[in-house]
Amino acid sequence: MSVTWRDDKFHDECGVFGIWNHPEAANVTYLGLYALQHRGQESAGIAATDGQQFHVEKAMGWVADVFSPERLRRLPGHRAIGHVRYSTAGGSKARNAQPITANTARGPIAIAHNGNLTNAETLRTEMEREGAIFQSHSDTEVILHLLARAPAGALEQQLPHALSQVTGAYSLMILTPDAMYAVRDPSGFRPLSLGRLGDSWVVASETCALDLIEAKFEREVAPGEIVAITDAGPQSIRAFPSTERQHCVFEYVYFARPDSVLWGRNVHTVRKALGRELAREHPIEADVAIPVPDSGTSAALGYSEQSGTRYEMGLIRNHYVGRTFIEPKQGIRHFGVKVKLNPMREMLEGRRVVVVDDSIVRGTTSRKIVRMIRSAGAREVHMRISSPPIQWPCFYGIDTPTRKELIGASHSVEEIRRYIGADTLGYLSLEGMLKATGSDPAQFCHACFTGNYKVGIGPEASPQLRLFEP
Amino acid sequence: MSVTWRDDKFHDECGVFGIWNHPEAANVTYLGLYALQHRGQESAGIAATDGQQFHVEKAMGWVADVFSPERLRRLPGHRAIGHVRYSTAGGSKARNAQPITANTARGPIAIAHNGNLTNAETLRTEMEREGAIFQSHSDTEVILHLLARAPAGALEQQLPHALSQVTGAYSLMILTPDAMYAVRDPSGFRPLSLGRLGDSWVVASETCALDLIEAKFEREVAPGEIVAITDAGPQSIRAFPSTERQHCVFEYVYFARPDSVLWGRNVHTVRKALGRELAREHPIEADVAIPVPDSGTSAALGYSEQSGTRYEMGLIRNHYVGRTFIEPKQGIRHFGVKVKLNPMREMLEGRRVVVVDDSIVRGTTSRKIVRMIRSAGAREVHMRISSPPIQWPCFYGIDTPTRKELIGASHSVEEIRRYIGADTLGYLSLEGMLKATGSDPAQFCHACFTGNYKVGIGPEASPQLRLFEP
Amino acid sequence: MSVTWRDDKFHDECGVFGIWNHPEAANVTYLGLYALQHRGQESAGIAATDGQQFHVEKAMGWVADVFSPERLRRLPGHRAIGHVRYSTAGGSKARNAQPITANTARGPIAIAHNGNLTNAETLRTEMEREGAIFQSHSDTEVILHLLARAPAGALEQQLPHALSQVTGAYSLMILTPDAMYAVRDPSGFRPLSLGRLGDSWVVASETCALDLIEAKFEREVAPGEIVAITDAGPQSIRAFPSTERQHCVFEYVYFARPDSVLWGRNVHTVRKALGRELAREHPIEADVAIPVPDSGTSAALGYSEQSGTRYEMGLIRNHYVGRTFIEPKQGIRHFGVKVKLNPMREMLEGRRVVVVDDSIVRGTTSRKIVRMIRSAGAREVHMRISSPPIQWPCFYGIDTPTRKELIGASHSVEEIRRYIGADTLGYLSLEGMLKATGSDPAQFCHACFTGNYKVGIGPEASPQLRLFEP
Amino acid sequence: MSVTWRDDKFHDECGVFGIWNHPEAANVTYLGLYALQHRGQESAGIAATDGQQFHVEKAMGWVADVFSPERLRRLPGHRAIGHVRYSTAGGSKARNAQPITANTARGPIAIAHNGNLTNAETLRTEMEREGAIFQSHSDTEVILHLLARAPAGALEQQLPHALSQVTGAYSLMILTPDAMYAVRDPSGFRPLSLGRLGDSWVVASETCALDLIEAKFEREVAPGEIVAITDAGPQSIRAFPSTERQHCVFEYVYFARPDSVLWGRNVHTVRKALGRELAREHPIEADVAIPVPDSGTSAALGYSEQSGTRYEMGLIRNHYVGRTFIEPKQGIRHFGVKVKLNPMREMLEGRRVVVVDDSIVRGTTSRKIVRMIRSAGAREVHMRISSPPIQWPCFYGIDTPTRKELIGASHSVEEIRRYIGADTLGYLSLEGMLKATGSDPAQFCHACFTGNYKVGIGPEASPQLRLFEP
Repeated sequence: MSVTWRDDKFHDECGVFGIWNHPEAANVTYLGLYALQHRGQESAGIAATDGQQFHVEKAMGWVADVFSPERLRRLPGHRAIGHVRYSTAGGSKARNAQPITANTARGPIAIAHNGNLTNAETLRTEMEREGAIFQSHSDTEVILHLLARAPAGALEQQLPHALSQVTGAYSLMILTPDAMYAVRDPSGFRPLSLGRLGDSWVVASETCALDLIEAKFEREVAPGEIVAITDAGPQSIRAFPSTERQHCVFEYVYFARPDSVLWGRNVHTVRKALGRELAREHPIEADVAIPVPDSGTSAALGYSEQSGTRYEMGLIRNHYVGRTFIEPKQGIRHFGVKVKLNPMREMLEGRRVVVVDDSIVRGTTSRKIVRMIRSAGAREVHMRISSPPIQWPCFYGIDTPTRKELIGASHSVEEIRRYIGADTLGYLSLEGMLKATGSDPAQFCHACFTGNYKVGIGPEASPQLRLFEP
Repeated sequence: MSVTWRDDKFHDECGVFGIWNHPEAANVTYLGLYALQHRGQESAGIAATDGQQFHVEKAMGWVADVFSPERLRRLPGHRAIGHVRYSTAGGSKARNAQPITANTARGPIAIAHNGNLTNAETLRTEMEREGAIFQSHSDTEVILHLLARAPAGALEQQLPHALSQVTGAYSLMILTPDAMYAVRDPSGFRPLSLGRLGDSWVVASETCALDLIEAKFEREVAPGEIVAITDAGPQSIRAFPSTERQHCVFEYVYFARPDSVLWGRNVHTVRKALGRELAREHPIEADVAIPVPDSGTSAALGYSEQSGTRYEMGLIRNHYVGRTFIEPKQGIRHFGVKVKLNPMREMLEGRRVVVVDDSIVRGTTSRKIVRMIRSAGAREVHMRISSPPIQWPCFYGIDTPTRKELIGASHSVEEIRRYIGADTLGYLSLEGMLKATGSDPAQFCHACFTGNYKVGIGPEASPQLRLFEP
Repeated sequence: MSVTWRDDKFHDECGVFGIWNHPEAANVTYLGLYALQHRGQESAGIAATDGQQFHVEKAMGWVADVFSPERLRRLPGHRAIGHVRYSTAGGSKARNAQPITANTARGPIAIAHNGNLTNAETLRTEMEREGAIFQSHSDTEVILHLLARAPAGALEQQLPHALSQVTGAYSLMILTPDAMYAVRDPSGFRPLSLGRLGDSWVVASETCALDLIEAKFEREVAPGEIVAITDAGPQSIRAFPSTERQHCVFEYVYFARPDSVLWGRNVHTVRKALGRELAREHPIEADVAIPVPDSGTSAALGYSEQSGTRYEMGLIRNHYVGRTFIEPKQGIRHFGVKVKLNPMREMLEGRRVVVVDDSIVRGTTSRKIVRMIRSAGAREVHMRISSPPIQWPCFYGIDTPTRKELIGASHSVEEIRRYIGADTLGYLSLEGMLKATGSDPAQFCHACFTGNYKVGIGPEASPQLRLFEP
Repeated sequence: MSVTWRDDKFHDECGVFGIWNHPEAANVTYLGLYALQHRGQESAGIAATDGQQFHVEKAMGWVADVFSPERLRRLPGHRAIGHVRYSTAGGSKARNAQPITANTARGPIAIAHNGNLTNAETLRTEMEREGAIFQSHSDTEVILHLLARAPAGALEQQLPHALSQVTGAYSLMILTPDAMYAVRDPSGFRPLSLGRLGDSWVVASETCALDLIEAKFEREVAPGEIVAITDAGPQSIRAFPSTERQHCVFEYVYFARPDSVLWGRNVHTVRKALGRELAREHPIEADVAIPVPDSGTSAALGYSEQSGTRYEMGLIRNHYVGRTFIEPKQGIRHFGVKVKLNPMREMLEGRRVVVVDDSIVRGTTSRKIVRMIRSAGAREVHMRISSPPIQWPCFYGIDTPTRKELIGASHSVEEIRRYIGADTLGYLSLEGMLKATGSDPAQFCHACFTGNYKVGIGPEASPQLRLFEP
C-alpha cells in the first residue's frame, strides 16, 4: 500500500561541505548543507571540533529536519565538515550516514565523501583478511582503514599513500585535530570548490553553498589535488600524477543546481544552451514549449528562445513532497508522477505541445507524462530531451539502474517514442551536448551515454553491464 | 539563534477535504490533503468512520510526514474528512489541529473548517457564561458548541440554526455517523468544490485535489448552501437567505494553486491576465522580466508576453525548505530570504531587470530581493506587483498582520519604492485586477485593498485596524 | 504473544497531591506523586500555576519516567496539584490522564480526583442533552461540567452546589488562580491528609507523601469537608450534612503503603494485627510462615509472631517489572506470576509451609503460587488470607472485576481451597478484620465482603452485580 | 536540580544470557535478561540469528522497556545471546550497549561480556598502532579485534589464541553462524551456568534466569572452560592451563539474586549464614533487628534467628524508582536515600534498633539511614554489616569508587561509627565471612577487603589505588 516515490532520474549520491576557523562552524555548515540538499536527501550529518574533542550528529532526513537548534548546540568548535547523502536502492540505512568518524592511533578523524570507488570491495576483503573490522559497506570506511594502516607519519604523507590504492571518483573532506583536507580524485569526476568567508576557509561541492553563506569563490580544487587547510591557510599538495580529466557532464545536464558555477560556467546558462542546441537539432511546428518542472525548465527556456515557440507552464509541480506515499489500491492512472505533477487543461487543450526534459532513464515517467498531457487535451505531444540516450550505468558516484533497466540501452529512439507515446521524440546528440557546454569536449566523462569508461571499473561492475541474463 | 522563516506574504489558514463511500477513504483523503498542502503547512488531520466508530489522527507537520502507513491504518472506514492548517502567529499548537471531534447527545461528530468567524469571541463568552467548557480558542469549537446546543432534531435542522448565529467566512466539512455535510457561508468567501469518483462523492477546497485523485469536478458548493451527502447521494439545502457574493480575490492573486479552477476560471490563466494588465498599466524599457519564484511566476509570464520583454530565471528557489532555520549570529546580509532564493549573476549582470511579484505585505522581503538583484550586478531594478497596495487586514480567514504593519497602509507608492530600493515600482490598479479576473467585479471581496468590509467585523477587529497606538 | 501482566488484586484508582505556596511547587509535587506511585501506575500528571497562567504536563507511565527535568521546567509557579492514575481495564488511554483542566467563564481550573461517582452516567447524559460537550468518559469531567454550570458566585458556593448533585466516593484537589481546594466526600471513603512544609500547605492521599518531602502531618481532611487554601491559610467549609462514615477497610488490608498513617493508625501495624488475628482464627502446625511478597509481608510477620511459626522468605520478588511481557508461545507453566515471583527450593523443600496473602480475587494467581511452592518441594501448603472472602464488586473508587469473576462470590471456602490446591485455607473473619483495625467497626465500608452498599449505587451497577447471565 | 540517584553500593557490571535451538530464541532471551536485570540496569541488548542473518536490538533502559513486541519481532532465528549492562560512572552511553557485533573475514560475530580485562588499554594501543579502528572504549571490542586478528582457522582455535593474550575477569557469550560459545576466565571470577530447556541449550550468569524459563540447571561453566554449543550439543574445550580459583565473594554478599544457586549454594541461605555469624561476632541487647531493604534482608533474618532479637520492618522501600530525580533546591534533609526508604515511627520509636546491611562503601548512605532511624524516635541504633570493611577497589568486573573514596580504606571502625552516627558498629570478620560461605575459603577472591589481587592488575590500576594525591 505504501510506496516510495522515486523520480525516474539519475541521482547524485552526495554533497560535502567544510569550514575552517569560524566561530559558528556547525551553523554555517548546516546552511551549506541546506544549499546542497539537492545532492542528497536521505541523510545529513556534521562533524565539528574545537581541535580536541570531536562531536558528530547525523540522522536520516532533510537537513532542516535533522538539525534542530538543540542538535547544533551539541556541535561546538571552530571547524566542521558536513555531508548530505542520497538514498541508493536498498542501502537506505542510518549507519550509512556520514561523516564517519573513528579513533585511530594518530587520533580522531572524520571523513565525508562524494563519489564511488571502483575497487572498494577488493580492498575491503583484503583488509578483512588481515583482521580489519568494518562497520558498514561504505567506500568511505575503506578509505578510513587505508589511512589507519598507512605507515606512521604526517597525514600529508599518509593520504597520498592511502589514496594511491583506490581507483574511482571521490571528492573528500577530511577533518583532524590539526587540519582540514579537501581532496579531489585525479580525474576530477565530481565538483569541489574552495571559498573564503572573512578569516574562514570554506569548501563545498557546489558554489551555490558558497553563495548562501556569502563566501567568496576562490577556485575549484584541482583534479588530483589535496588542499590542506590549517591556521596558516590552504596549502596545495599535488600528490598524484596528472591524468585525463573526466568531469561528469551529467552535472551540467541535471545534477547541479542551476545557480551553481561549475567548471567555469553557470549551470542554468549551459542548460539553456543545451535547449537551444536541441531546438536546432530537432525543430518542430508547435503552439507551446513546456518544461517538465523542474528538471527541464532551463532547457525549455533555451528551446523556446531558439525556436520562437511560446514558453508556457503546462505542468504544475507540488513541492510539498515527502518520500513515501500511500498509494490507493484502487489504481489511479499513472499515479506515481501525479503526486508531483498536475497538467493544466487550459494551457494544453487543443494545442501542439513540445515538452522538454533533461533525460530519460527507464521511460516509465516520460510515458506517464505524455499520457497526462494528452489526457489534458493536447493535440500533439513532442518530447525533446536535452541529452543523448542513456545507455550505460555510472560507476563514478551516481546512483543508476543496471544496464538492462535503461530503456536507451536496448531500444531505438523510434521504439522509445512508441513506448512513451509521443508524436515525435528528439534527443540531443553527443556532439551537440558537448558543444553546448562551451568547454573542451575532451575533458568530460560521458560514459553513461557512450560506455567509454576511462577509469578502471573492475570485475565488480559486470553484473550491472549485462543486457541479458547470462 | 534559531529563527522561524516566514514569507512576507498573506497566508491562507486552511484547506478541507471529504470523501463519502470509498473503501480507502482515509488514503484518498491523505492524497487530497497533500494536494491542498499549500493552504496550510502547520498541521494535518483526518477523521474517518465506518458509520459507528470515529477515528482521528492529527499532528503538527506536513501531510506526508504526519501520515505514515501505520497511522493511516488506524483510520478504517468508508468515510473521512481531512484538514490542513496554516500556522497563525502565536497559535501554533498541536491542540489547534483539526478535524475536531466530540461526543454530543446525538452521537459523535467531526468538523473541519476553513475560514474565520467575526463574532466567535462574543458567542464563546456567552456560552461559557452558561456553563460551556471550551478546549481551544478555535472558531471551529464555537460551531461545535452551537450545534450541541441546537434544539433536538435532525442535523439538517440543527445546522442552519447553529450557523444562523455566526457571521464571517466558513467552508466547512462535517462528518456524522449518518452523513457528510459540506457548507459554505452565504457570502462564499472561501472556495469549496464537489466532485465524483466512481461511486464516491468528494468535496475539496480546491479542484487540484480532485485532479490528483482523478475525481470528476461536478460543481462548486454554492454560497449559503449545505450539501448533505448520504448513500442516497448529495442533497442540497438552501438554508440561508441569499446575499451578496464575496469571493476572495486574493485566492486568484496568490493563495490558490495555479492549476486549480476557481469560480469558473483556471488560476494560472487569471494570473497571467493580471501580469498582462500590469504590463499595460506600468510598461518599462527593460532587458529581462523575472519572477519572484514561485509566487510571481504566472504573472511574470503574462507580463513578458504582453510587453515583449524576455522572460528569464534570475532567482533560483530552494524547495528543500523546512520551517525553522539557524541563523548565524555573525549576520549574513538579507539572510531571511536567502535561504529560499539565490540570484544568478549571469542572468542579471549589467541588465535592466523587471521583477514581478504578486503582492507586498510589510516590504521587508521585497527590499531584500531588490538588494539581492542589485548585488548580482543588475543595472536597473523595476518592481511590478500584480495587485494593488495591501492596506487592510483580513477578517475572513486569512492570516494577516495588523494594519500598522502593512507598508501599503501608511506609505505612498513612492515611499514604498524608496524603502525597497527599486528604480520604479508599479502596482496593478483595483480596476485592472478585477478586470483581469474575467468575472463580474461585484462578486469579489477586496477589503484588504479597500477596507470595504461588507460582512460585519465587530468590535473585536478594531485593535487590528489602528494605524497608530491610541 | 504479548500480554499485559496484572496481579490478581483489587487496585486503587488514583492518588492526589497538592501544594500551595512553594517556590518549587511542581518539583515537590513530583516527589509527592512518586511516593503515591503505588496508588496508580498508568499515568501521572501535574498542573501548576503562578496565579495566572496554568501549565499542565501529563503522560502515560510512571512518575519517574513521565517527569524529566525538561518537563518539570515547563511547570513554573508556586502552586501545583498532581495525580497518579491506575489503569482500569479497557480505559487505559492518554486522554484519561489527570489533572484535567479547562477554561470556564470564571477562568482556568484544574481538577485531580481519586474516587468514583455512582451517578456519573446519569448526570452526563442529562448535561449532554442540554448541549454540554464531553472530552472523556471520566467522572472528573462530570464534576468540571457541574462546576461550570453552577450559578455565578464564588467557587466556595459553586463547589457545594455542584457536589451536592453527585453521589459516591471522591477525594478531590482543585486548583484555581485564587485558591486550592481539598474536598472529601461526606462518607469519607478515600483518605486525604493535610500537612505543612514551612510556609507551604500540602495535601496528599497518604501520609507517606508528606514524609518524603518532610512535611508535618496536620490532620486528615474530614469527610464532607472542603478545605480552601489561600495565602491566608486553610479555611474549613462544612458544606454537606454529616452522614455515616464509610472508610474503605481495604485501604488497611492492601491498598495503602505500610508506612502511611491512616485514620489514626500506622498501616503496617494494622496489617500485623490482621496477621495475628488470622493466626488466632486459623492456627496450623507448620515449619515456616512465608509471605506472598510484598502484599502479604506485614500480615505474615504478625502471623509468625502470634503463632511462633518461623518467618521465612520462600518467594523472591523481581521488582524490575514492566507492564507488558512477551510470553513465549511454548507455554511455561504458571508463567504469569513467575515473572514476579520465584520460589526458593532451599527454604521450602520438605517443609510444611504457611503462605500468607492479603486477599484472593479470582483465585488464578493463588493457584499458581500454591503450585509453585509445591513444585519447589514443600510437604504441605497452608494458605492464610488476612481478610474475608471478596464477594462483591466495589463502586467507590476501586477497580474490581464483576461479581461473577470473584471466586469468593460463587464458591465456598472449601471449593476455593480445592481450586487453588492448598492443604488448608483460612480466611480472616469480618469481625476479626474489623477488630484488628483497632477502630470503631461501624465507620468502615466493607461492601466488597458483605454487599452492604450504604451509598446509592444506582441502576448502572446491576450488570456488575449479576452472578449469572440473565 | 536533577540528580542521578545511586546507591552507595558496589555494582555488578553485567549479566549475560544465551540460548541455542529454540523457536522463540529472542523471546526467551528477553525473559532471561529480565531475570538478570539486577546485574545491570543501564542498557539491554539481544543479538539473534537464523544461522545466516544477524539481527541486533539494543538500547538504554530496562529490559521490559527496551523490548517491545515490535522490537522482539525484529529478532527472528533459533539462536540468541543477550546482555544487561550496568552504568559505570561517565561511561553511560548507548554505544556501549552490548552485544556488540561485527563482520569479520570469517563472517558475522556477536559478543556479550561480563567482566573486566586488566590489560585492555595496552592491547588496544598496540592494535591501533597496527591500523585497527575502534568504535568504543569497551573491553569487549578488544576481544573482538583479537579474534579478527587471530590466524585463520576454526573459531575453536582462534578463541584460545585471542583470550590467551588477555588478563582479568570475563564470562563471555559469543554467537557465530555455526555455534554459540560460553567462556569463563581461568580464575572464574564471575558466575556462568549451563542449563537445558527441552531440546535447547541455555547459558546464563545466574540460575534465577534458568528458573524463570523453567530450564533445568546442568552445571556451571568451569573456570577456563570454553563450551562450544552446536546442534550436536555442548562440547567442552579446556584451552587454558588450570590456575587458582578466584570466585568473587561479593556475589554472595550482595550482587547475586537471593534465589540463585551459586558455586553450589543458595545465595539467600549463605546470606542468612552471614547474618548468623554476624550475630555471633557482634551481639547486642536490642528490641528489634531491622534490615536495610532489600540488600540487608536475608542477613537480618539470619541475625534475628541467631540472636533472638525480633525481626521487624522499620524501613519501607519504594520500588517504583527511576534513575533520575529532581531534587528540590531547598534541601530536604538526607534526601538521596529518602526517595527509596521511609522509616516507620511506630516500629522504631523508643526502641533499641539493630539495623543490618551488607556493606558500607563511602558511608554517606549509612549515615543518612542512621539519622533517619533516630529521627523516627529510636533510642539506640546499632549498625551491623555482614562483610568486612571494604578497603580496595575491584578490577575484576565490579564498578567501585577509587580507593580514597572508600571510607574503610582510610578510617578505623570507630571512626566510621562516629561518622555514620551509630551507637555501635560491627563488621563481620574476613574469617567469619569465608566460613559462612560453607565452601573452601581458598577459592574466593576477597581483594576488595584485603588488597590481595591475585591476577595482574597492571600499571593502569595505580591511580585508583592511591589513598592520597601524589
